[in-house]
Amino acid sequence: MTGFDITVYKGSPNGKIVKSITHKDTLGNDEVLLKITHAGLCGTDEHYKTEDMVLGHEGTGVVQQVGSQVTTFKAGDRAGWGYLHDACMHCDECLNGNEIFCPERHMYGLAEKDEGAFGSHAIWKADFLFHIPDAIESASAAPLMCAGATVFNAMHGHGLRPTDRVGIVGIGGLGHLGIQFAAKMGCEVVVFSGTDSKKEEAKSLGASEFYATKGVDKLEIGRPISHLFVTTSVPPQWELYLPVLAPNATVYPLTVSEGDFSIPYMALIQKGLRIQGSICPSRGTHVKMLRFAAFHGIKPITQTFPMSVEGIEEAMSKLAKGQLRYRAVLVADN
Amino acid sequence: MTGFDITVYKGSPNGKIVKSITHKDTLGNDEVLLKITHAGLCGTDEHYKTEDMVLGHEGTGVVQQVGSQVTTFKAGDRAGWGYLHDACMHCDECLNGNEIFCPERHMYGLAEKDEGAFGSHAIWKADFLFHIPDAIESASAAPLMCAGATVFNAMHGHGLRPTDRVGIVGIGGLGHLGIQFAAKMGCEVVVFSGTDSKKEEAKSLGASEFYATKGVDKLEIGRPISHLFVTTSVPPQWELYLPVLAPNATVYPLTVSEGDFSIPYMALIQKGLRIQGSICPSRGTHVKMLRFAAFHGIKPITQTFPMSVEGIEEAMSKLAKGQLRYRAVLVADN
Repeated sequence: MTGFDITVYKGSPNGKIVKSITHKDTLGNDEVLLKITHAGLCGTDEHYKTEDMVLGHEGTGVVQQVGSQVTTFKAGDRAGWGYLHDACMHCDECLNGNEIFCPERHMYGLAEKDEGAFGSHAIWKADFLFHIPDAIESASAAPLMCAGATVFNAMHGHGLRPTDRVGIVGIGGLGHLGIQFAAKMGCEVVVFSGTDSKKEEAKSLGASEFYATKGVDKLEIGRPISHLFVTTSVPPQWELYLPVLAPNATVYPLTVSEGDFSIPYMALIQKGLRIQGSICPSRGTHVKMLRFAAFHGIKPITQTFPMSVEGIEEAMSKLAKGQLRYRAVLVADN
Repeated sequence: MTGFDITVYKGSPNGKIVKSITHKDTLGNDEVLLKITHAGLCGTDEHYKTEDMVLGHEGTGVVQQVGSQVTTFKAGDRAGWGYLHDACMHCDECLNGNEIFCPERHMYGLAEKDEGAFGSHAIWKADFLFHIPDAIESASAAPLMCAGATVFNAMHGHGLRPTDRVGIVGIGGLGHLGIQFAAKMGCEVVVFSGTDSKKEEAKSLGASEFYATKGVDKLEIGRPISHLFVTTSVPPQWELYLPVLAPNATVYPLTVSEGDFSIPYMALIQKGLRIQGSICPSRGTHVKMLRFAAFHGIKPITQTFPMSVEGIEEAMSKLAKGQLRYRAVLVADN
């Protein structure tokens, strides 16, 4: 046999996880073969579980083999990857370092269906892999590849400054990393969660204030918030949050959702609010995120599951029920 | 008699314009009495025409008398004013030059009801009046006080750069000024209007491209737009505009509307779009707007009506029917 047989875990029309084999004939000159060690489970995987495609886009692994032109990785290196795994590199967006917006970008789940982070191995272009800093374990690095990258990108790319008062709505995969990033950026971090159940943990992660919102008609938080990161999968009750937003505040809806994004029109205009869409970062920001996390000891709180049909299904079931504290990581068995 | 009897034009419950007298006992130390010469008619006045309040917030006039502590204006000076006419001047917002967001701001129509720009005279705080540059006639200056200020503020305050490709949806009071400002800022100005009826005028104002949108399923405009200013009173068809927006583009909904602002969620996230709420400017930006307009000869295209019950009603009727090209100005009879 020539080439590579790779075990992968895919969605299927009835929502069951299916084990399958992807065959790759060759390793391209610019590609890297990795043995996958860890993969984070993201809410987005839930959207794809009824699709005939490989799941997982928060991967870490160990390099097994590199293509003839690859100089940036060697066998034995640890590497991670996220949503983006190719781009044209010569369009206006790519030329300006915005390859995440390349019209020919390949994002996991949007273009490719035969590889992912849920599997035994993966082959990716070397230029879209990231070295994992020594200070970060591979199990912790995996959730940084999408959840961490997404929340960091929003915080880094749109004018947030250390003197700002930041609000984070929801403490889950994104939120619990967002608290850490914002706190280490020097911000006052005001966390909103349904109940007090995650209060102590939020404080230990860096929250300077915590407010439970269930059954609350009016928030009393003192100085208003200038950047509000919404990490819940359902839209927040705007009537609760609009009064605590400062003029010119920015609102970041971070979770992916269908339908329309809606917000009261008069508040938008009269307070000069900004609604900032944001997705996972381009590669330059991704590297900064990893450096910042390594420097400050930022890491996800994880629950691990075996990288298997059963492990993935159990993790997805807990995610769907809101039982994860705070990110599931699938671990390969050797 | 002591004090001042001022003729004003108000809304009324049945939507008819009512002539009335406002009595002011004294002129405050920090106030200025103006004889109104011109007033622009804004779409927002339409919202208030069934209220028992004085209409008009795009005023120009000639100073008649100044309070004892006023040093910045003298009798005979021309002056203009817009929506904002007072603020605390010592809160966080005011200290940073953002008095438009002062919690104690007084905006025309929101707090005060006994004076406006539709009338014979007005008394305002000197610090909230603007000198009209010599190069701008008072009739032209009036619509700059709200329409011009609003569109300029959006263009000046949120990262628009001369190298940007700008889209303007709608050619009315805001749009026809926006075309001029954006063109003089050095931008490519792409104008969208229902039909070709305003095409030549848009080009003469500075539009580099013009697209009629009525009955169009898909816009073919070449290079995409990075800042889209929506000046129509109804929301645009997003399915038409989203495909021509560049990644990270900013959308500015400029007209005031009730209800919710809505936009497709996935486009917001995946393109990293920004929705920027914006209102009329703080005073510093208002002054820059007037200087820029004077320097570049930017001025509204106006239709004049007499400052009277009949004149106001005729102008409002034409505005409601979309017959104005492009801004009504009420002119005092001497």
